[in-house]
Amino acid sequence: MKFVTFEADGKVSIGILSADQKYVIPLQAAEQGCCNSATLPDTMLELIEQGDAAVKIVQTILERADSSCPKLALDEVRLLAPIPRPRKNIFCIGKNYVEHALEVDKTGDVSAAVPKVPVVFSKPPTCVIGTGAIVKNHKQMTSKIDYEVELAVIVGKTASQAAKDKAYDYVFGYTIMNDISARDLQKAHGQWLMGKSPDTFAPLGPCIVHKNAIPAPHNLSIKSMINGEIRQNANTKDMVFDIPALIAAISSIITLEPGDIIATGTPAGVGAGFNPPRFLQPGDEMRLEIENIGILVNTLEK
Amino acid sequence: MKFVTFEADGKVSIGILSADQKYVIPLQAAEQGCCNSATLPDTMLELIEQGDAAVKIVQTILERADSSCPKLALDEVRLLAPIPRPRKNIFCIGKNYVEHALEVDKTGDVSAAVPKVPVVFSKPPTCVIGTGAIVKNHKQMTSKIDYEVELAVIVGKTASQAAKDKAYDYVFGYTIMNDISARDLQKAHGQWLMGKSPDTFAPLGPCIVHKNAIPAPHNLSIKSMINGEIRQNANTKDMVFDIPALIAAISSIITLEPGDIIATGTPAGVGAGFNPPRFLQPGDEMRLEIENIGILVNTLEK
Repeated sequence: MKFVTFEADGKVSIGILSADQKYVIPLQAAEQGCCNSATLPDTMLELIEQGDAAVKIVQTILERADSSCPKLALDEVRLLAPIPRPRKNIFCIGKNYVEHALEVDKTGDVSAAVPKVPVVFSKPPTCVIGTGAIVKNHKQMTSKIDYEVELAVIVGKTASQAAKDKAYDYVFGYTIMNDISARDLQKAHGQWLMGKSPDTFAPLGPCIVHKNAIPAPHNLSIKSMINGEIRQNANTKDMVFDIPALIAAISSIITLEPGDIIATGTPAGVGAGFNPPRFLQPGDEMRLEIENIGILVNTLEK
Repeated sequence: MKFVTFEADGKVSIGILSADQKYVIPLQAAEQGCCNSATLPDTMLELIEQGDAAVKIVQTILERADSSCPKLALDEVRLLAPIPRPRKNIFCIGKNYVEHALEVDKTGDVSAAVPKVPVVFSKPPTCVIGTGAIVKNHKQMTSKIDYEVELAVIVGKTASQAAKDKAYDYVFGYTIMNDISARDLQKAHGQWLMGKSPDTFAPLGPCIVHKNAIPAPHNLSIKSMINGEIRQNANTKDMVFDIPALIAAISSIITLEPGDIIATGTPAGVGAGFNPPRFLQPGDEMRLEIENIGILVNTLEK
């Protein structure tokens, strides 16, 4: 079940991406058409808050969907970020794959490079854009823009001091985030917020896959391509801190809320890891792919 | 003009604190009573978004206010944080007073301790509590809780690439924030988010003073007292990066929005600066005061 937020005829709605990814089922219209009821909300955040009840209704819609069910061709809508405007900053995890920690640390010392506890920072809601949108180059402020493909966890329920073995109870689903980073600003400002937070630096999408469709989130291939060239190519099994560990660590002191986003860190192959570094150039296409989720494509402003 | 958010009879409203600080004028009721109109919203975020138009109406209310104007005794309402739920994480500035940078750096080297560009990090909305509320001690996770009095700037208008000499155009007003910090977590996690973000670690208030009432925000005495003992005692003129510099720096890459909060850093005298350190103990009272704004008082959970 792939949830999307989309714009059609100037109106923003939520829907389900069809299995063949050729069309979108608009949820409110489909509920009225297939179930003769009107309980589903029209934003992803409200749907996530409705939780299991909403997901059940969506399942019923999909089971009953026939040729009379309303649907929109994918190429006639514009996909937005599945959560176009998060209600707080995105929680992001740094150095959460060993090889990536080593490529940016550059000392070759695993015990120094790999964190002992999760490194957490944030990106504000003003960073979020959808697939297909242009990433601003902020060229007056940075010349070292980098890509980072990440599995992003969407929190489904309020979590405080969640136990690791219950952590998935608090997950709604998964999407892809491009944790775009201005390496010069990230370094200059000490703390990473400035380098991670320029407007448009958090492409998110293309969809949120419900957790039921991804029973093993730590066995997904994850990769990025720049202008068609593979740069990152790894598997989510290689995270230092897995999803239960991250949810337990954050929620040990911070109440997680429905709709919160946790970007779980990026594997090796970022531009800063090459020698010499291979930062993004104006017009470069970033194509990020995670198995069973989809493809998130964005281009850097020329 | 001191704007407050308060709870009375189970309802949350916004109001104006009277000059003698003895009562609160509930804005919606007062507008109906004094102006026979109903244009003001009932949340601080909406009021800030209405901007100058709303401020003018409030001025008219205050000019017309007579004995018939509705008012509530301050001790009969509960003040909440003026913005109880920010729409994104609070922008926070680290090491923004020279003496504080030196007390935590401990090398004695000004050029190493004092940042060349603003150090920016964030605290999520789940940190925010009002004056009088209890700060959780999170004792299972930290034993090094510290206080930090800070002047917080409330953004009034959308700002992108704001020039320093226009920066105050984007300011709505000022309040006090206690940037409570778990020093052990702040250090362990590398990036500061975890140590800065435990639930209840951003007491905010008691009110937002409109910028017109504070024409010189860089000439305010700023101090903190723990159990009545003065710990921090400085002046906002001593910031490394002043408010125009901070607004220009952040908005150079991040669009600031109405209601955004920028906590401008803390002066010397935090617990971590003493030798040996003087961290907060369960039950300690933190009393933070900034000239022309007020007093923000919170107690650490026993």
